[in-house]
Amino acid sequence: MQETQRTEISTLGEFGLIDKLTENLENRNASTRKAVGDDAAVLHYDGTTELLVTTDMLMEGIHFDLTYTPLKHLGYKAVAVNLSDICAMNGTPRQVTVSLALSKRFSLEDIEALYAGMRLCCERYGVDIVGGDTTSSLTGLAISITCLGEAPADRIVYRSGARPTDLVCVSGDLGAAYAGLQILEREKRVFSGDGAPQPDFAGKEYILERQLKPEPRADIVRRLAEAGIRPTAMMDISDGLSSELLHICKQSGAGCRVYEERIPIDYQTSLVCEELNLSPLTCALNGGEDYELLFTVPLADHEKVAALQDIHLIGHITEPSLGAALVSTDGQEFPLKAQGWNPLL
Amino acid sequence: MQETQRTEISTLGEFGLIDKLTENLENRNASTRKAVGDDAAVLHYDGTTELLVTTDMLMEGIHFDLTYTPLKHLGYKAVAVNLSDICAMNGTPRQVTVSLALSKRFSLEDIEALYAGMRLCCERYGVDIVGGDTTSSLTGLAISITCLGEAPADRIVYRSGARPTDLVCVSGDLGAAYAGLQILEREKRVFSGDGAPQPDFAGKEYILERQLKPEPRADIVRRLAEAGIRPTAMMDISDGLSSELLHICKQSGAGCRVYEERIPIDYQTSLVCEELNLSPLTCALNGGEDYELLFTVPLADHEKVAALQDIHLIGHITEPSLGAALVSTDGQEFPLKAQGWNPLL
Repeated sequence: MQETQRTEISTLGEFGLIDKLTENLENRNASTRKAVGDDAAVLHYDGTTELLVTTDMLMEGIHFDLTYTPLKHLGYKAVAVNLSDICAMNGTPRQVTVSLALSKRFSLEDIEALYAGMRLCCERYGVDIVGGDTTSSLTGLAISITCLGEAPADRIVYRSGARPTDLVCVSGDLGAAYAGLQILEREKRVFSGDGAPQPDFAGKEYILERQLKPEPRADIVRRLAEAGIRPTAMMDISDGLSSELLHICKQSGAGCRVYEERIPIDYQTSLVCEELNLSPLTCALNGGEDYELLFTVPLADHEKVAALQDIHLIGHITEPSLGAALVSTDGQEFPLKAQGWNPLL
Repeated sequence: MQETQRTEISTLGEFGLIDKLTENLENRNASTRKAVGDDAAVLHYDGTTELLVTTDMLMEGIHFDLTYTPLKHLGYKAVAVNLSDICAMNGTPRQVTVSLALSKRFSLEDIEALYAGMRLCCERYGVDIVGGDTTSSLTGLAISITCLGEAPADRIVYRSGARPTDLVCVSGDLGAAYAGLQILEREKRVFSGDGAPQPDFAGKEYILERQLKPEPRADIVRRLAEAGIRPTAMMDISDGLSSELLHICKQSGAGCRVYEERIPIDYQTSLVCEELNLSPLTCALNGGEDYELLFTVPLADHEKVAALQDIHLIGHITEPSLGAALVSTDGQEFPLKAQGWNPLL
């Protein structure tokens, strides 16, 4: 390690670090169409199909806690979050590679459970496991998955295409995964105390599933295509709605207005938030891990998109000078802030 | 974790574990041509180009020791070993994704040094960094790299194509990377003792570089093509010559004879082995990490391949019934054994 200067990585955050490391990266290959900076890279080898590539690394103690995460669920989720990135490019996931680093406390049966979850997710979404690496770790479990997918060149959707008057849409509901995590963390604390009762998860099945076993929204990609809608910008919600909206606005050179009363929050999320004294809106804006799709469509597609089930119109894109803001139920505007999860803190 | 049964992963070894996890894997996509079981997966999207995909995960304390590994070298090597797998398919590496998990002891300057090594290797081999993931780790550094490459469909070389009478060839020289590792480990022990002198690396530059900064043999792939030679089987030497020969023999359904006196060992490797009381032959057979190419060519190509520099004919492929054996200088035959490095022990 260098001795001369020491800048703590936590002062940069994940995106700052990535910017630093990837500045002035030049592409040397004609097949590299779009490298760093979106949900997936876009490659073009030949023919009319573009290849999409994304990768995610999950570390024990940072991204998951095996106290309450069944290994099969973890395997499912590790694949699902990668498929979600391909969906976020409006593509179809096709292949994954799976690398695992295991400490000695994992038995074959443990790893088979983990892998069974991975295979189940691949099976459900028609994806092939084509390779990987298996090795040891001194401590804990590390999972690295790379997903390849495809899309016709004219169907790929980047984060940068949103234009003023475009409608801002989101699939499913938000905040549930974060609420589920809070319940799991609470039960872990209870369980580690004296005279621990069994965890009480009754009536919380939905939010727990949202946290432990998210689904990539391949169905939304398919239904948008069937409805003849090509989003102008899209990404998946892994860090929280605010953070992702800011990415789209920044990369599109635009602003946005989203309306508090239009943000979809499930009834179970609201109940649990009340129980935990959390704001459901904050969970939806900053909670993350929902893996829903956030996208923009031209205003002209309003009727078509409004007719689709499980898609919510939450606002619109504006000129950049207006900034990115949330309009509360009483009409006040609050600038959106990226308070999503920082994996480097 | 499951409580019912517990099989230690160390009892299976890496290949046993992979076999277990990937048994009955079905491919669902037409674009998946060849999944698990070679140096890289082979995908076909459209056109005449096949896409190659490989991935490697490197864990601190398992694959590298930062006591004596400069971060820039580590970054270079982490990319190089992936490019080597694409070369081993007779392909050309094009893109990589780079995932890093960092503990707090790493500063921005450290990671910039690591990344500078990665970028240098990419630059030297004309490869683009197209994505990745950056996150935290509770302990140590984890690096996961995925490499994409390409080859015309009729140029791809698998491990399974070796036929009796084919010549067994190897590029460069063997055992140097292992000898270099032994020197580094010795100097580490000296250094951690009392009154530690400066490490003494004079006259050992070559073997240290072989360990710390291996090169993928893209030049061999190019020169074989220029000479009009298409290997029948190929892989790169990461675990050791014996282990890799056994892979080719097993997957090709063949046996082999390789000759002790023909195995290329550098003079510096021999000197260091003498100093350390090691057998140079054992280093070459079982040392690993040389990242040279091991390949077979039809007997008819004998003259063409013999005319190429830095390629050594070390034996030939036989009928499977003869098994895989080393012929010693005095004519005795010794069955080859896979005693390469097991990352799961």
